[in-house]
Amino acid sequence: MDLGGAGGRRAALIGALREAVRSGRLAPGTRLPPYRSLAADLGIARNTVADAYAELVAEGWLTSRQGSGTRVADRVAAPSPGPVRPATPPPLPYDLVQGKPDPGAFPRAAWLAAARHALTEAPHEAFGIGDPQGRTELRHALAEYLARVRGVRTAADRIVICSGAAHALRLLARVLGGGAAGPWAVEEYGLPFHRGLLTEAGVATVPVAVDGNGARTAEIPRHARAVLLTPAHQFPTGGPLHPERRAGVLEWARVSGGLVVEDDYDGEFRYDRRPVGAVQGLDPDRTVLLGSVSKSLSPALRIGWMCLPAGLVDRVVAAKGVREPHTSATEQLTLAGFLASGAYDRHVRRMRQRHRARRDRLAAVLAERVPAVRVTGIAAGLHAVVELPAGTERAAVAAAARHGVAVEALAGYRHPEAGGRPHQDGLVVGYATPPERVYGPALDALCAGLGEALGDVSGSTSGRAALSPPPAGPSS
Amino acid sequence: MDLGGAGGRRAALIGALREAVRSGRLAPGTRLPPYRSLAADLGIARNTVADAYAELVAEGWLTSRQGSGTRVADRVAAPSPGPVRPATPPPLPYDLVQGKPDPGAFPRAAWLAAARHALTEAPHEAFGIGDPQGRTELRHALAEYLARVRGVRTAADRIVICSGAAHALRLLARVLGGGAAGPWAVEEYGLPFHRGLLTEAGVATVPVAVDGNGARTAEIPRHARAVLLTPAHQFPTGGPLHPERRAGVLEWARVSGGLVVEDDYDGEFRYDRRPVGAVQGLDPDRTVLLGSVSKSLSPALRIGWMCLPAGLVDRVVAAKGVREPHTSATEQLTLAGFLASGAYDRHVRRMRQRHRARRDRLAAVLAERVPAVRVTGIAAGLHAVVELPAGTERAAVAAAARHGVAVEALAGYRHPEAGGRPHQDGLVVGYATPPERVYGPALDALCAGLGEALGDVSGSTSGRAALSPPPAGPSS
Repeated sequence: MDLGGAGGRRAALIGALREAVRSGRLAPGTRLPPYRSLAADLGIARNTVADAYAELVAEGWLTSRQGSGTRVADRVAAPSPGPVRPATPPPLPYDLVQGKPDPGAFPRAAWLAAARHALTEAPHEAFGIGDPQGRTELRHALAEYLARVRGVRTAADRIVICSGAAHALRLLARVLGGGAAGPWAVEEYGLPFHRGLLTEAGVATVPVAVDGNGARTAEIPRHARAVLLTPAHQFPTGGPLHPERRAGVLEWARVSGGLVVEDDYDGEFRYDRRPVGAVQGLDPDRTVLLGSVSKSLSPALRIGWMCLPAGLVDRVVAAKGVREPHTSATEQLTLAGFLASGAYDRHVRRMRQRHRARRDRLAAVLAERVPAVRVTGIAAGLHAVVELPAGTERAAVAAAARHGVAVEALAGYRHPEAGGRPHQDGLVVGYATPPERVYGPALDALCAGLGEALGDVSGSTSGRAALSPPPAGPSS
Repeated sequence: MDLGGAGGRRAALIGALREAVRSGRLAPGTRLPPYRSLAADLGIARNTVADAYAELVAEGWLTSRQGSGTRVADRVAAPSPGPVRPATPPPLPYDLVQGKPDPGAFPRAAWLAAARHALTEAPHEAFGIGDPQGRTELRHALAEYLARVRGVRTAADRIVICSGAAHALRLLARVLGGGAAGPWAVEEYGLPFHRGLLTEAGVATVPVAVDGNGARTAEIPRHARAVLLTPAHQFPTGGPLHPERRAGVLEWARVSGGLVVEDDYDGEFRYDRRPVGAVQGLDPDRTVLLGSVSKSLSPALRIGWMCLPAGLVDRVVAAKGVREPHTSATEQLTLAGFLASGAYDRHVRRMRQRHRARRDRLAAVLAERVPAVRVTGIAAGLHAVVELPAGTERAAVAAAARHGVAVEALAGYRHPEAGGRPHQDGLVVGYATPPERVYGPALDALCAGLGEALGDVSGSTSGRAALSPPPAGPSS
């Protein structure tokens, strides 16, 4: 390298001239000094100047015509100023919005160890163009893990790696067809983001009522192309799908030919007993299981999976498209090793204990300080529903915000066409996100906000409907 | 942990019963022994058996009704066999298909060092839900790098991280609108994959003729919504876009209001002199620059970028969609550090030397052994075009395959509607992929195949047209 030599001087001159043209100091049309004289002025070789001019001509900054010398091109436009974005308000100090683990709990050291192993041991081909279905090492590790922990019946060749549940839903909507193929049934309470994805993909959604036993599967329309369910822990209201309804949804699938799409978003985080196994295990040819590490490890990794019926694998891979969007092969190998080494189990176990302690603390604090509310949906997951007296939901969210708490109203999760029972006012309280030292103050602030909002109705229990009675499951 | 205790026994019993139902050993409808007697038989606590039954009922494997005991559910379907894929032929031993660096050349140690730094130093929020635009650290590092090396005029807030050029084209097609907005002009020789993406997105493509000075920009239709160009190194024929044509395409953009999409796929790998700067630097408000690490580092990482006019940033971010598909935040941080530390420059420099040596060897070997062909498009990149006598292209690809060489015909890159000059027969020879020890044998096999295919015309030069004369650039 000769940064101090002719190459370095040429690069410096090119940079200086480019900047002068950019900034307008050298106006369009300006004739540059002949390179011999500039070379003499600068005390550098003529060739160096000639090379720099030639380069800038090739790039279009200068023009060079026989007889008229070298001039600044008149087509160099100044860039317009960057986009003016609306000023976003600073985030509230206490984040109780559901769905995200505490980013500070990411197991950096263990993940780095797995990355080191992956980068050291990977075969060379891992750095080539990959398989859109995903790395076989990861698919094997997932098949083993999901069978063991979630009762999933699958195999590496039935798993497709994707970047998360939303990516999976986009792919499925595309594979199953849009409006003509029929609508998707969705739970009347669910993630608006997921409903929006389907709508965007041209798929209409039909709400199915939800009660304390999960979705009322008998109400799934016969003509629906698919049903999107959260059987392990109805999202966000909280109960597991009752065994009879598990049977019911598979019966629907068999009779109608429809597909069950099981969003197993937090199946690992169950507190009352062992995790309820996935519906997928009961009928792997009619069920797609969607999972990801977004709740268990971090949404920043963008790694998810689909366990598919055999007949859908090739179609989903084709819909994924050649090369894009893949998940990085090195990250896939890292997760494969993280699973195989038991590091994933250890992390989930540690997080489960932590979430459970936070859930207990939330329930205890609210029971003591805001007796007008009821905490439900707490047997699993990273969030709970705080049921409120009728008509207080909006005021509660606003009061919480005044106390620095970001939290969402249950109404935001309700399907716009949901009918039947009136809406149960409530808050969806995510207890996983705040750092440990912030969780206590966050709960204090939440109680203060709720106290303020419910001040006039506190102590009254009228207007409360039981959204989520404890599941009437046949636990022995 | 009590794997040997009641929890472990319960888990073992659940696993064994599930497997028995799955495999059919316990047929649907079979009545299970009362848990008291099974507990006695197995010598374990009654509660353990009761818990296991309850769990399997909750999962749907068993049913439990008052009075009829616990039975195997009749709805557990056996999974159908996995997809039967067509047997893919084993890959040929010598891979001279363009577009991929040698996966064995990936800088594992340097990348791991960057990953370690990223995982250690990242702020906690890096493990939270990320910005769909991409990590700010990476966008800043890219803005600096692209200005320095490619003459790009951009800023971190104008860069959107994506998973590669294909992802970028899909996003742009969506943002600019489909058929109604007008077709895209594309070079008459180009990547069929890219044309296919646009077609799939509802965008028609119109071919623009290509000669030794790159695309004939005067022929870009006025009504085209955008033009997709490879100015640094026309893909795959090989020349840089002539300065007058650089001016021409920007003039087209100004007059028509169209967008220039600059696929800067291998701009760093130029061998005759310094890399030709990007067209983007001349008019950042009418040009989108697309780049990625797929050629420089590895396609397995799935990291690319778009440098956008200010007015397109928010629309592209919106088209990307919330959360999916993102690139992993840890990978983004790793690349940011890899760029900032100079490791990327070092790797590119090493690869440039290696590619150049391979290119020289290809040209020398063919000149000596297959004089009927001409090697062109070699001033840059990871591939060359081997021009063949007219009518020999298919035979050459087939003969190469017989000698174990995977290589592509130039015809495959031609736009189906390309008119004008007749097709120049040729091979697109990627010289970057084989491992070092395999490159010599690969060239030998290529020569053998070409000798076989051209045996009857060897020595004759009739039928050859000069597709790519050396650029008539004004390099002083």
